[in-house]
Amino acid sequence: MGTPVLRVALLGCGVVGSEVARQLQEHAEELASRVGARLELVGVAVRRAGRTREGVDPALVTTDAEELVTRADLVVEVVGGIEPARGLLLRAMEHGASVVTANKALLAEDGPRLYAAADAAGVDLYFEAAVAGAIPIVRPLRDSLVGDRVERVLGVVNGTTNFVLDQMDSTGADLGEAVQEAQSLGYAEADPTADVEGFDAAAKAAIIASLAFHTRVRAADVHREGITGVTAADVAAAREAGMVLKLLAICERTGGGEGGPEGVSVRVHPAMVPREHPLAGVRGAFNAVFVEARAAGSLMFYGQGAGGVPTASAVLGDLVAVARHRVGGGRGSSESAYADLPVRSMGEALTRYHVRLEVHDRPGVLAQVALVFADQGVSVETVRQTPLGGESDGGAALVVSTHAAPDAALAATVEALAASPAVLGVTSVVRVEGV
Amino acid sequence: MGTPVLRVALLGCGVVGSEVARQLQEHAEELASRVGARLELVGVAVRRAGRTREGVDPALVTTDAEELVTRADLVVEVVGGIEPARGLLLRAMEHGASVVTANKALLAEDGPRLYAAADAAGVDLYFEAAVAGAIPIVRPLRDSLVGDRVERVLGVVNGTTNFVLDQMDSTGADLGEAVQEAQSLGYAEADPTADVEGFDAAAKAAIIASLAFHTRVRAADVHREGITGVTAADVAAAREAGMVLKLLAICERTGGGEGGPEGVSVRVHPAMVPREHPLAGVRGAFNAVFVEARAAGSLMFYGQGAGGVPTASAVLGDLVAVARHRVGGGRGSSESAYADLPVRSMGEALTRYHVRLEVHDRPGVLAQVALVFADQGVSVETVRQTPLGGESDGGAALVVSTHAAPDAALAATVEALAASPAVLGVTSVVRVEGV
Repeated sequence: MGTPVLRVALLGCGVVGSEVARQLQEHAEELASRVGARLELVGVAVRRAGRTREGVDPALVTTDAEELVTRADLVVEVVGGIEPARGLLLRAMEHGASVVTANKALLAEDGPRLYAAADAAGVDLYFEAAVAGAIPIVRPLRDSLVGDRVERVLGVVNGTTNFVLDQMDSTGADLGEAVQEAQSLGYAEADPTADVEGFDAAAKAAIIASLAFHTRVRAADVHREGITGVTAADVAAAREAGMVLKLLAICERTGGGEGGPEGVSVRVHPAMVPREHPLAGVRGAFNAVFVEARAAGSLMFYGQGAGGVPTASAVLGDLVAVARHRVGGGRGSSESAYADLPVRSMGEALTRYHVRLEVHDRPGVLAQVALVFADQGVSVETVRQTPLGGESDGGAALVVSTHAAPDAALAATVEALAASPAVLGVTSVVRVEGV
Repeated sequence: MGTPVLRVALLGCGVVGSEVARQLQEHAEELASRVGARLELVGVAVRRAGRTREGVDPALVTTDAEELVTRADLVVEVVGGIEPARGLLLRAMEHGASVVTANKALLAEDGPRLYAAADAAGVDLYFEAAVAGAIPIVRPLRDSLVGDRVERVLGVVNGTTNFVLDQMDSTGADLGEAVQEAQSLGYAEADPTADVEGFDAAAKAAIIASLAFHTRVRAADVHREGITGVTAADVAAAREAGMVLKLLAICERTGGGEGGPEGVSVRVHPAMVPREHPLAGVRGAFNAVFVEARAAGSLMFYGQGAGGVPTASAVLGDLVAVARHRVGGGRGSSESAYADLPVRSMGEALTRYHVRLEVHDRPGVLAQVALVFADQGVSVETVRQTPLGGESDGGAALVVSTHAAPDAALAATVEALAASPAVLGVTSVVRVEGV
């Protein structure tokens, strides 16, 4: 009896796809030993034929993805975007193929439909590569922590913005300079919108929250603020406060017990974290996901969140897993959305603000400022006043850290501060997490 | 149609067992939603009846574990040790139960026999809790990275010794004081042998290496040095060198290509790591496992490696996974030992040494010392000479870092140095990793 063969179709042949193809061929024997079956690449679907793909047998290349997915046992999708990826994956599953995808946008837009198709066909839907590249985070959330209760996830899940903020922190550069540096080093695309505006992180946040809270969360449910508003003054304020600025994907439970009905808050925005927090040490283009669970306590998963080769590692890990199911029977986890918790608005999220003001240095100003906070029901944790040097004509800088309060109240406070006659200007407003 | 029921037997009711029992009961509904079946605790086997176990229904407690395992679908073993755990798990699997165990000693001693029994019975053998408590490391190695090639794993997998070394580093305490401190805080047992002599870490190293390299590695194959030889001088030498001392579980590939036939080196010993290495930031009783894989690059998994509650999280995650297989069909991964690489001796391992000597401060001494290294074929990377102050009568301290060399050659070098007339004494010898 020969080794059984599983037919693999690859949709997309960009940096990740060509790396997957290369590894499938180069490590064929090793993979066969691990799966118990040979993984045979039967086709590579591309949008435009003609261009030679290094390491990919031209005979395998096709522009007819619709046809290709009907003759595979396992379909790997690394095209990205909603269509034609969605149609192809649904069609693949209808025809009985298990699916491995790195498509965060599609999962965050229409995950439940893909899950339903997988269930209907009795096949697997795996997507480790969709969140944080090579870092195992989908499987730990989906399986390892499934007997626990995840309370909060804080993720540095976008390497481009982490690189940019890290540059600003270490060199004092402003945002534009740091983005240019990231572009020149290949960490940012020519059009960096998806990264710097937080779209990429928001899709990942939706996927993480769905898994962590057994609740459907779509990208559209995620409050999203990118880093385009981050100034050198914000970075300096963080440094002064012993913190560091990160773009965080934040997924947390809200309410419960005396805090009212349970819900979840899912959001992406810049935030300061203390320098001793494990996430603060995530430098350059690295990613990390910090998880707080009721029983497990604090966990962190750290590594390379992007790039063709690391992402291919995640794709191949999934491919071996679903292939093993083909050989040995069974399936991996399906969708778990039984908890069905409501997603709260940003205004309801409990956050902390770190605000830097410039004020007139005269009696009564501190009281006036304090009153603005009190009026909004916001409790101040620390306040530090220092005289402004130089040409500031006797003004003072006031740095205020708040306790946790509804974000809407904090936002209203900042608005009221800006309008207060005691305040010359609000020079920096950044949320604080991980304290 | 009612919800199906799966019968769970619990072997052992210590800190982990009682926590598992508590959570099974307290979160029964949540777990049922996640599994698709109710997990019913049908018995808790203990060695001695009589003592009341908080939160455990006395009617469930039995001393007849042999009988209990025959009437369960899922058996959780948190007894530890080789027997009777092994006999009970084999019996449970023969009777068709899937098994979840936290027993690192048993897995490192006789894992293949357990795997074979699981295969014969078509059941699952899961053991996330056996390595690094709540930190998902077994599943990432077994599944997430299965499409990749793991090159090296460096683990801080014993919280007790990490706490002790961290204390020595931060307070300057000597080993005895730090162990006492750990004992008084509950981080070390009254008899700390298993931890400080590295037995616990060696069992974990064997399990990690088996998974990472698809090769059977037993605890007896692991070269083991504990921390009992670590002195305040070693800790100070590390600090001086910009490094920090850790007890590491090291699993790495050796040879391959021009380096001769492939093999693996699996060892536990104290080593310095640079302060900027992610493992250096693992403080107190925390654990972390740093993985280098061909495609994924560097990954780190960080969290609480011990304690009843975190360990229960890992056990329950496994329990839900194997229960889902009962409901939905299929099995998780079996043993993968196809690579069958030879385990190399410690003498063959390529390591780096950091050596601090006290020498006579006179012409020719440096040359004599350098000759000792050269005689053993050991290449020196850096050397720093400083005069000894005070009563030292004109001697000098010589701090030497070597390039990687076979450990046997490095050990022979140290022996020859100690015997050299130029050398007053060898005051610290520590290996270096993660550079």
